[in-house]
Amino acid sequence: MLHGYDQIGMHFRMLSDRMRMDTFQRAISNVVKPGDVVCDFGTGSGVLAMLACRAGASKVYAIDRSNFIKTAAELCKANGFEDRITFLKTDARTVDLPETVDVLISEWLGNAALEENMLPPLIGLRDRVLKPAGIMLPGIVRIMAAPVRASNRFEQITFFSQPICDLDFQGLANPFAQERFWAHIEPEELIGEPQLVTELDMRTVSNGSLAETITLKFAEQGLCHGVALWFDAEVAPGVSLPTGPHAARTHWRQVIFPIGPTAIEVSPGHHMEVKISAHGAGSDVDWSWSIGVKTDITQDLHYSFSSI
Amino acid sequence: MLHGYDQIGMHFRMLSDRMRMDTFQRAISNVVKPGDVVCDFGTGSGVLAMLACRAGASKVYAIDRSNFIKTAAELCKANGFEDRITFLKTDARTVDLPETVDVLISEWLGNAALEENMLPPLIGLRDRVLKPAGIMLPGIVRIMAAPVRASNRFEQITFFSQPICDLDFQGLANPFAQERFWAHIEPEELIGEPQLVTELDMRTVSNGSLAETITLKFAEQGLCHGVALWFDAEVAPGVSLPTGPHAARTHWRQVIFPIGPTAIEVSPGHHMEVKISAHGAGSDVDWSWSIGVKTDITQDLHYSFSSI
Repeated sequence: MLHGYDQIGMHFRMLSDRMRMDTFQRAISNVVKPGDVVCDFGTGSGVLAMLACRAGASKVYAIDRSNFIKTAAELCKANGFEDRITFLKTDARTVDLPETVDVLISEWLGNAALEENMLPPLIGLRDRVLKPAGIMLPGIVRIMAAPVRASNRFEQITFFSQPICDLDFQGLANPFAQERFWAHIEPEELIGEPQLVTELDMRTVSNGSLAETITLKFAEQGLCHGVALWFDAEVAPGVSLPTGPHAARTHWRQVIFPIGPTAIEVSPGHHMEVKISAHGAGSDVDWSWSIGVKTDITQDLHYSFSSI
Repeated sequence: MLHGYDQIGMHFRMLSDRMRMDTFQRAISNVVKPGDVVCDFGTGSGVLAMLACRAGASKVYAIDRSNFIKTAAELCKANGFEDRITFLKTDARTVDLPETVDVLISEWLGNAALEENMLPPLIGLRDRVLKPAGIMLPGIVRIMAAPVRASNRFEQITFFSQPICDLDFQGLANPFAQERFWAHIEPEELIGEPQLVTELDMRTVSNGSLAETITLKFAEQGLCHGVALWFDAEVAPGVSLPTGPHAARTHWRQVIFPIGPTAIEVSPGHHMEVKISAHGAGSDVDWSWSIGVKTDITQDLHYSFSSI
């Protein structure tokens, strides 16, 4: 029985994501110098480790805890890099390497960057294996937010307001409206400018949690259903990987944190204050968020939710 | 952090599946008689337990191991059935009831019936709690198979035959072509008549495994990519729930077992012999299959695969 990253379909999704592959390929070719020692955390199919070899790395330590690492080693051999890549099937939280590395590569990014909770083990690995002047790739990850309409989802919520087989299921509408969800938000569903939630400088970030308060302004009149989060990565200087609604579509989706069971009518000049936090929990994160909306009619409506 | 059946989105998918709800509603109203004692295994949102109450059940034991059972109990209360439904958050493999039941209801059906591996615990529960003259609902579950074209998937496999970032990933094409997958097969993708793989009489079926050999005939000329499996349930006498390519679309999909890395050109008169087995493994099943194709050109081509 295959699970998650053991399934080739999962790797198909990632390897066929042109934006993902193009930016990482360019970033690695710009950053990795001949003779560099490299570590690739969460190597998956080994593709980034092989790109590091092609950029001139003399040695790559490729770490993954998935069984798929055997397949990665075979692909590496088929491409003639077996002398330079050492695959380590291990937990990155405890592994140490026989030498420090010049570049620590990792495609650790989940939706809104933090989902999949790979940042904490990456930070620990960085502190153990990266040379003082070493380079993190990606270098900067920005978590962005914007207020959004998400009518499709709210039609699903409305479904529970009507009888199902003549039974009352209204009790599911409110909790359903409080679950975060994932979508490809279209640019026209943005109802305010994206704002920076936090900028993670991968050389210095010291924990994998998030706890921020931001103010989002509404740019147009209409319904607001919640707040979307995504990441824009600067994989290397000048090589960016945006995953927001305005960017070319990738296999990443935006994470939408709903405002509650009903949409709010908003206008330009109104704003919302969003407190959002994320804490790692296994291979996921527990999110909590509270949203205060300041409109003409509703003075400081306030909603608090948690994904736990 | 919510998982699987704890998430309301999962229940939305099932409750908004009209075919599913209509057939179970009709079946329960036909089968459950006033005064019946009923057990509902895997009650989820509690919808089937409530329908049993409405059909006249005097008592329903609703079993589920998900945390969602608390929500089910609240929905039950909102519908006025709290005096008649007892929710038991427990493992069906070990639970016993204070009395035997007239009807054992369960929407235990995964893709190709067996996925999710709920049949073995249902059989055990039946043997402990169902009265000798008691009724199983669904009553009959037929697992069906047909040879299919599945060109979309094979385009994905072809993706690995081409370089990715100028690296050779052909090593993934063969194993990817041997993974079972899920799809809504269109009627025009069937290239032979559906055949019965096995008929599960729910009153007598004694294990949750499958080990069958069937012969499938090709009805038209073209490419064959593999064998699709699905189920057609007779939820109650005269109330059927078909989930094959010719049926109205439900939230269930067909399970496709590929023939291997390349499609086979077939013609009317050719046939394939399919050995297929499924054995429960946790909340999934391990499948293995071997396919022998008898065409004019290829004498008894033979492929064997396993999902493990």
